[in-house]
This record gives sequence, structure tokens and C-alpha cells, in this order.
Amino acid sequence: MISPTRTIDELKELRALTGDEEGAQRLAFTDTWVVARSWLMSKLQELPVETHRDAAGNLWSTLKGESEKAVLIGGHIDSVPNGGWLDGSLNVLAGLEVLRRVAAQYDGRPPVTVRLVDWADEEGARFGMSLFGSSACAGSLDVEVARGLVDKQGVSLPEGLQRVGIDFEKVKESHAELENAAAYVELHIEQGPVLLDLDLPLGAVLGTFGVERNAIIFRGQAAHSGSTPMNRRKDALLAAAKMSLEIYNIAELHGGVCTIGSCVTKPGIVTSVVEECRITLDQRHLDPAALAEMLKDARKASERFATEGKVVVEWEPIWSIPPRPFDEALIDFCDEAIRETCGVSHRLPSGPLHDAAEMAGAGIPTVMMFTQSLHGISHNKIEDTKEEHLELAVLALDRLVGKVMERVAAAS
Amino acid sequence: MISPTRTIDELKELRALTGDEEGAQRLAFTDTWVVARSWLMSKLQELPVETHRDAAGNLWSTLKGESEKAVLIGGHIDSVPNGGWLDGSLNVLAGLEVLRRVAAQYDGRPPVTVRLVDWADEEGARFGMSLFGSSACAGSLDVEVARGLVDKQGVSLPEGLQRVGIDFEKVKESHAELENAAAYVELHIEQGPVLLDLDLPLGAVLGTFGVERNAIIFRGQAAHSGSTPMNRRKDALLAAAKMSLEIYNIAELHGGVCTIGSCVTKPGIVTSVVEECRITLDQRHLDPAALAEMLKDARKASERFATEGKVVVEWEPIWSIPPRPFDEALIDFCDEAIRETCGVSHRLPSGPLHDAAEMAGAGIPTVMMFTQSLHGISHNKIEDTKEEHLELAVLALDRLVGKVMERVAAAS
Repeated sequence: MISPTRTIDELKELRALTGDEEGAQRLAFTDTWVVARSWLMSKLQELPVETHRDAAGNLWSTLKGESEKAVLIGGHIDSVPNGGWLDGSLNVLAGLEVLRRVAAQYDGRPPVTVRLVDWADEEGARFGMSLFGSSACAGSLDVEVARGLVDKQGVSLPEGLQRVGIDFEKVKESHAELENAAAYVELHIEQGPVLLDLDLPLGAVLGTFGVERNAIIFRGQAAHSGSTPMNRRKDALLAAAKMSLEIYNIAELHGGVCTIGSCVTKPGIVTSVVEECRITLDQRHLDPAALAEMLKDARKASERFATEGKVVVEWEPIWSIPPRPFDEALIDFCDEAIRETCGVSHRLPSGPLHDAAEMAGAGIPTVMMFTQSLHGISHNKIEDTKEEHLELAVLALDRLVGKVMERVAAAS
Repeated sequence: MISPTRTIDELKELRALTGDEEGAQRLAFTDTWVVARSWLMSKLQELPVETHRDAAGNLWSTLKGESEKAVLIGGHIDSVPNGGWLDGSLNVLAGLEVLRRVAAQYDGRPPVTVRLVDWADEEGARFGMSLFGSSACAGSLDVEVARGLVDKQGVSLPEGLQRVGIDFEKVKESHAELENAAAYVELHIEQGPVLLDLDLPLGAVLGTFGVERNAIIFRGQAAHSGSTPMNRRKDALLAAAKMSLEIYNIAELHGGVCTIGSCVTKPGIVTSVVEECRITLDQRHLDPAALAEMLKDARKASERFATEGKVVVEWEPIWSIPPRPFDEALIDFCDEAIRETCGVSHRLPSGPLHDAAEMAGAGIPTVMMFTQSLHGISHNKIEDTKEEHLELAVLALDRLVGKVMERVAAAS
């Protein structure tokens, strides 16, 4: 009854409608996003569901069950500019297909309620704040920060929302949607190479990494590149270079990931030793204690390198979020569903954040399922997944939703 | 008869006339530079010398001797903006004092000709080309490159020269000044910490370093900082970081100096592995073979780090100049003059370039003498040297000129 090929057809239909030769263009709150939403609603109209947009712009479709307790299936139809055809929309359209199957199987009245949610502005590509709709719904949105955000054209987030009929001051009213939420499931492409390297189509996600983001500034002494002996230098770049190597040791020791993504040198001229070097460090781990250890090790290393190089070091916090571990029982279900679908499963954490992290943070038992990404790349038009893996993903998500519905029904 | 304290008084007089609270402001070809030159000419008028400006704007004062063979004493009264009180002007004013002594001792007719030259635009701070006047005189100036140079206000070098009465198309006629040049000597502050560390007032300079300046571009793959395992990264910054450490080994192995002064990362954001990293490498050595080896080692290292990190590397030449070794007999004289003045000497190369490098390149037997720099710093208002060292420098330069005159006289 479930038709994975229909999902693939619908993904292609959406791509043709809202993409161009540079990729998907469904930037949240733009006309193209409105077109994508409207297309999705036309699909939902064929189902026995009630559909409405909440105060934060999230689109909810509810298949009412015997119990009000609800299983939520999430995704986001918005994309980054020049994005891929699967990031977010696979989640939504696989969820749509599962909703169709459940509606048909139970003749429009399943034992528990099932809801599909299309979150608004997961990507944060326009205003720089990811997970907008889900964080408003979860209650974790920092309204004061969000109010001040502007896009590249100088349009503020409140103005941008108003243009599509959303009142910024009321977005947290979206929280009411979670009243009967008993579980949250989300399918997503992996966006990394782990399943590709293991040659596996699907994996059960353990949670989203916590993130510690800091700038590290080393300050030495500018000096003439010709007249300053090597042993007299206070070279800020040297200390930063040692850090850039050391993050690989720190990541390996704790099993997390660390990235130095930016390096800025001052005065930054060919004839002077670097006086000031500012690097950014992004550290991620699923385990809060291990993340704290990684941060501690990085601080210690930076201080050691500063002392060795007779420079000083200063840290500037940029952003952080704690790890969001998913629900253990649901992870087990996800593993089972995958094994039943393709024989073998794998458990892995998610480096990138997802709306699921907000639901887990709001206390809803949550799990995600990943499907393999070719090239291990997303946020790019070359983002892709084999069609046979997409089909397996729809089937496995359907099995997972079935298992979760049974559990919720049993607890009701 | 020689009066080192007069030199110090004149240095202070010049500082009061052409400096402000930010330092010396004698940028070449500006009004302040013209004022400094005019002040210098008023001092020279008291001596039995003929003074004229050559085609490149260099100022020559000639004390005619029995022989036309001439000992040249060089310096430059121009400074960088916010410069120090000694860089360049010490050379000129110590030379002026020596000229006074020689004129007085021989009653205006020494056995050989002695000439003081104030080079035009040694610093290159305005148009970005160092050693303008001396390279025009030496014949090495690249006229086509120089013609296209513009300052920050968009004034071209030919226009800037015209404003002070110099015809750009004729600057190489300055070469005629070298017709009877038999030797060239130049005193300068060290601008580095070598003599300071040795607690020595003076040193004999072996020559100016050759310079190899290149950009090294590593190209890897941008990748998500959360979803990309450490062992799957093609991190361009990692390879650049390894280079930044390795230059210290390369410099030590060959006894030269290497500097990475600039590092630019792309995309340069906190959430992405660095795709492209561009660093600049400045390498200097007095020995051409060792300089070539340093460059070869750096290339090999960059290729090794690129291979290790699965990135590619590309080199872009920026600029180079061969080493300019000074005259061995004159270095010996310089050493002797220093030992006779203060008991102990030291031989050292010059990392920075000087007008002396152009004279050595033009085939004139050349030597420089360095005096200690406090803080090892110049091109800054904190540039300074102890007055007792300045006095020793004037005395030692005078002795050196005496020895060189004897040699030139003997060969005439």
C-alpha cells in the first residue's frame, strides 16, 4: 500500500517546480517557499486530514486517531539557496506517504493521532538563525535576538514574517501544538559520509551533537621578516598553527569533531611576523561530559602553545548548544525498522542540528533515521542519494512510525 | 676634531623640524621631505663641497680630492610615515660629520674625492617600491613597473616626481654619478635585536639577504563542520598549519630566516572545513645556494603536507632579489674600525634591504656598519639607540672612511 516510488516522483515534481539549474531555491518565507507550501497543501487535500498553519508558520496536518496522543512526523520544505533536492523535503514527502498509508490502513481513524509537521525556516539561511519554527514551537527561541535579525537586503525577521502573514510577537503560541505530542520521528539524508563509507543505506540516529563555538585570539609582536632572528619572534600564527594540528588529536582522543574554519592574520603582510591571529574553533560531541573535556583540552593546548611561543591567548565565546540525545526506546525501534527493511542497521550521531533536536529538548521522545548521502555532501546542487536508498528510507520510516504508534497506543 | 655630539644634536634638530608626536614624517617627495632636504643643504653650505641633485632626485655633495676616485658615504633622509628618528637620517648626518672632519683635516683638498649621497625614496612607503633613487642610479630600476605605480591618492610615481621637479623618463641618467665611485660605505641602525642580545654597540655587515617571496595556496574541500568525520577531511588549513611550523625547521637547518606573514581562509566560516588557504612565505639568506635550498625545502614540504592531507598545492611567485654580499676587504676595515673604537666587533648579515645593496649590485666595493637598536624595532616612533652608541657609531664610521680613503688613494 505504501508507495516509495511515489515519494521519489513527488520529490522530482517539487524540484521541477521550485528549483533551477543552480539547485533548490525554497528559501523560507520567499515566494518560492510559498509556492512549495501551496503545492504540499494540494497533496494533503487528498487525505482525510485537517491542515493549518500555526503561529510560527509551521504547517500541521492532523490525522485524528482514537487517542488524542499523537505521533509527530517532521520535516522542512525550505532549503538553502542553491540547495539540494532532498534536504528537508525528503522528510516531508516520505512523511506524507506514511500518512497516506496510515489513513488508508485505518480508514481515516487510526488508534492514535498522527501528525505531519512542515517546520518553518529550519535552515536559517536568510536571517542566520536555524530551527526558527521548531524552536518557537519548543519554546527555546530567543525572541530578543530573533527580533533584531536582518537579511542581506536589510529586511528584519519580523518584517519578513509579516509579509507572509505571521505575527512575530505571537510565534511562541505555536507551543500549544505540542499538547498531546507523544513521540517525534524524522527522516533525513545523512549529509556526511559515514553510511557511504560503510556501504549502508540507513542508520538510526543517537542524537544531535552538542556544539561549542569559540574564537581563539593569539597576540604576539609584529616584527620585520628580515631583521628578526627566528628565536626572537613572538609569532601569533605559529601558536594558531599548533592549535590547527592539535584539534585532530583532541577530536581523536574524545571521539568528537573539531574544526578550525577561519584564520585571520594581522598585520597580514608578507614582510612582517604575524602580531595577531584569530581562529574560530567549532567542537561537537554527543556526550556533554566529553564535549566539556574537548573544550578544556583545547583551552589547555592554546595556553601551552601561547606560553611556548611567548604570545598571549584570549578566548571569545561565539555560540553553544548542549547535546540532544534521542529516546533510547525509539532508537531501538528505529534500528529494528531498518533491519527489517534492509537487513543491517548502524547507529550514528548527527553532527548537524535538526528540528528533532528542538523536539528532544522540549522533552518529547524523539528519534531520527538517516539515509546515505552520495559524496557525503549537502547544501549543494550535487547533493544526492541513490533512488533504491530513498525507497528503502520510505519503507523503513513507515515501519518505524508503525512501531511508535503501537507503543503510544499501548501507553494511552 | 670629529664631534659625535653634534650629530646627535642635528638628529634632534631634524626630528623637531620634520616629526610630530607620531614620529618622523619625511615621506619621500612630500613637502616635509623637501623641508628636510633644504635643512640638510643649509648644513652643507658651510662646507667646501659642491652639492647638486641628480636626475633621480638623489642629493650629492662632493668634496673634491687630489684623485677623482671617490669614496661614497650614503644615507637617506626620507622616512616611513610615523617613522623613527634614526632610520636613514643617522647615516646622512654621521656622513655629514665625517665630511666636515675630512674637509677640515685636509684643508678642503683630501687625497681622494669624498661624496655624501642622500638617496631619494629609500623606503618606498608611498609608491611601494623601495630603493628608488639608488636603483635608478645603479641601473637596476625596472622603469616599466615604476611607471605604473600609484600612491593611495591615485597619484602616479611620474606625477609625484614631476611635482618636485624630477623627470621620470630621465631618472636612469643618475647612473653617471657612479663614474669614479671606488667604494661605498653606509652606517645604519640594525633594526633587529642581534647586537642588543650580544650587548654590543656596533657590527660589520656581511651583505644584504637575498629574498624569495611566494604565495602558497592549498586547496582542499569545504565540508560541514558537524557531519564530516576527521579522517574524511581535506583540510587546506591543516596543510598550511604544518607549513607554518616547518618554516622554523627550514630556517634553522640553513641558518636563514623564513616568515609566514599572511594567512587567508575560504570560505572562512566557523561551520566549514577550510577549502582554500593562501599563505605568504618570505625567505631570506645571505648565501644564494642556501637560499635556493631553503626554497626547495619549502616546496618539498608543501607538497608532502598536501599529499598527507589529500589537498593540492600551488605556488605563486611574488618577488625575489639575490643576496648582495659586501666587499671582503671593506668588511675587514669595518671590523677594524669598530674594534679600534669600542674594543669588540661582530659580523652579521642584514635582513632588511638597504641602498648599499644597489651599490654592491652595481659592482662598487661596498660595506655597511650597524649600530645597536633598542627593542630591536624600527619603522616606529619607539625606534631608538643609546646616545653613547650613536657617538661610537659616528667615531667608527669616521675611522672606516679614513681606512677606505687610504686604500683608494693607494690604488689611484
